[in-house]
Amino acid sequence: MIGAWVAGGSIAVRDDLENPRPREGDALIRVHVAGICGTDLGLLRGYASFEGIPGHEFVGTVEEGPSSWVGARVVCEINVTCDSYEAAEARCPQCSAGRSAHCTRREVLGIRGRDGAFAEWVTAPIRNLHRVPDDVSDETAVFVEPLAAALRIQEQLGLDGRERVLVVGPGRLGQLVARSLVAKVSCLEVTGRSDGARARSKAAGIATRNFDEVRGGAYDVVVECTGHPDGFEVARASTRAGGTIVVKSTYNNVLPVDISSLVVDEIHLVGSRCGPFPAALAALEEGRIQVLDLITDRFALSDARAAFKRAGTSGAGKVLLSPTA
Amino acid sequence: MIGAWVAGGSIAVRDDLENPRPREGDALIRVHVAGICGTDLGLLRGYASFEGIPGHEFVGTVEEGPSSWVGARVVCEINVTCDSYEAAEARCPQCSAGRSAHCTRREVLGIRGRDGAFAEWVTAPIRNLHRVPDDVSDETAVFVEPLAAALRIQEQLGLDGRERVLVVGPGRLGQLVARSLVAKVSCLEVTGRSDGARARSKAAGIATRNFDEVRGGAYDVVVECTGHPDGFEVARASTRAGGTIVVKSTYNNVLPVDISSLVVDEIHLVGSRCGPFPAALAALEEGRIQVLDLITDRFALSDARAAFKRAGTSGAGKVLLSPTA
Repeated sequence: MIGAWVAGGSIAVRDDLENPRPREGDALIRVHVAGICGTDLGLLRGYASFEGIPGHEFVGTVEEGPSSWVGARVVCEINVTCDSYEAAEARCPQCSAGRSAHCTRREVLGIRGRDGAFAEWVTAPIRNLHRVPDDVSDETAVFVEPLAAALRIQEQLGLDGRERVLVVGPGRLGQLVARSLVAKVSCLEVTGRSDGARARSKAAGIATRNFDEVRGGAYDVVVECTGHPDGFEVARASTRAGGTIVVKSTYNNVLPVDISSLVVDEIHLVGSRCGPFPAALAALEEGRIQVLDLITDRFALSDARAAFKRAGTSGAGKVLLSPTA
Repeated sequence: MIGAWVAGGSIAVRDDLENPRPREGDALIRVHVAGICGTDLGLLRGYASFEGIPGHEFVGTVEEGPSSWVGARVVCEINVTCDSYEAAEARCPQCSAGRSAHCTRREVLGIRGRDGAFAEWVTAPIRNLHRVPDDVSDETAVFVEPLAAALRIQEQLGLDGRERVLVVGPGRLGQLVARSLVAKVSCLEVTGRSDGARARSKAAGIATRNFDEVRGGAYDVVVECTGHPDGFEVARASTRAGGTIVVKSTYNNVLPVDISSLVVDEIHLVGSRCGPFPAALAALEEGRIQVLDLITDRFALSDARAAFKRAGTSGAGKVLLSPTA
């Protein structure tokens, strides 16, 4: 089959990839469309030392699996955890404790030890699948995975609605974070460097600021979505004492952090990763969160190299890849 | 009066200091005994660019102030906040929001903009004072401030008692943290490099481990009390995914932190500073937490230089200074 292949910091399109074969408990899924996110670009720079087919935001149709699933249009959670396959007594401590998102033996589709969806087919455990309602299009449903990651913040923080929130980084993930939070808190602003990305926030009715317009110590919660040291610095400076910094992005290197200032100001720093698919699907089906305007580009899978290049340019929104385009 | 004086990274004993004069709302307190903590040693290394009289853990007697307070033996909260002196409309945003511990205009006794207690007298706002019960000795009561800081962790975390907790650093603060938590959680261990400090944990009935015996990812909550990069590294490595690192210590420099690992593992990093004096006084009065064995040395105020030197040696416990010794 055709697929994108990452190895040694570069990406190539290959037409000699073996079709994936589902193991017991897995489905074989034909990919309709997949999205490129910051983590995919990070893989190219060496993040997670990944070699294989990337891609973890996708929509497809089950072609092989239990009869009740064959033909279903699905999105797919990305963590493949040992409790998917192992009997209770053979599970890792995290799965045994009911925290399978942090399975110590997990594979992650397109990120860690398992091929992803920038290909014609992909396999995943049946338990990771969620059916997409008929009235949610492929191009909307492809946002379920990143939107779920954005909604994870609400699961973690227990917001009471009175918070002043700043989202640092109005890119792909930052947009979803901002749109998921804007109706939930008393004040939400987005800050960033890119005019294009800020424009997308404005179009969605969200207040935007340049980095140098952000007031120091003015926000109860700051969500860092840039993955860059200067974004982290803005996040730290804008968080009030006693406030919370949510870190959503992966960074290529260790960051120099003034830990003493976190102690003196009693800052909470919260790492945040994957989130609830059902909540994301519901928000999209009910139209509570708009996403289609975030798509800036559509590429055929055979043009994956160009798609990745485009996704890495400033101001690019969601770049989609489709095997059938 | 006599007092210790920190300036330009060195400490001297001076006998030419002016007696402090209480302003409206303040008490003048004659110091009985004061304790040296890691932050005091940090001030000598340039932390907070402090110049003046250090000392923020102390017991004394009110000599001037409202008649109801004169003669009272007291301990004293260290944050002098603008809501102590200012009318509501003139207060900082944090005080206005009821978060005066994070007053943006605060002075901190012996740390920031205000002289502390390594002297014969010190002044502090009446509202910062807490009466010491007769059956709590000076040498016990001098632990109220650091024990309150240890108890802050319980205020912040909302422990349910099932946690496995590791305290990194069995020094002065780490001992109080461990002793305050050991009866509250299902498992508590202390790790550190110093044999002497580990021995004090053992004597208090607390399980101890060398750094290299600590199991990776095995603890729900890890409290970092060393203030050293290698301590932070042990703390990070021993925290399970989804777990919490409480940072109690100030560091001299920025630390290189692998933020991506905090994101992927959804770690909560919680800065923790000052805590509840009433709870600390109650724990000491009821004998729930023992502290006297932590005292290793007693110096006269006139020997403050030697006392600081001793406090900076490995294995030193609490070093006390007394103007009347």
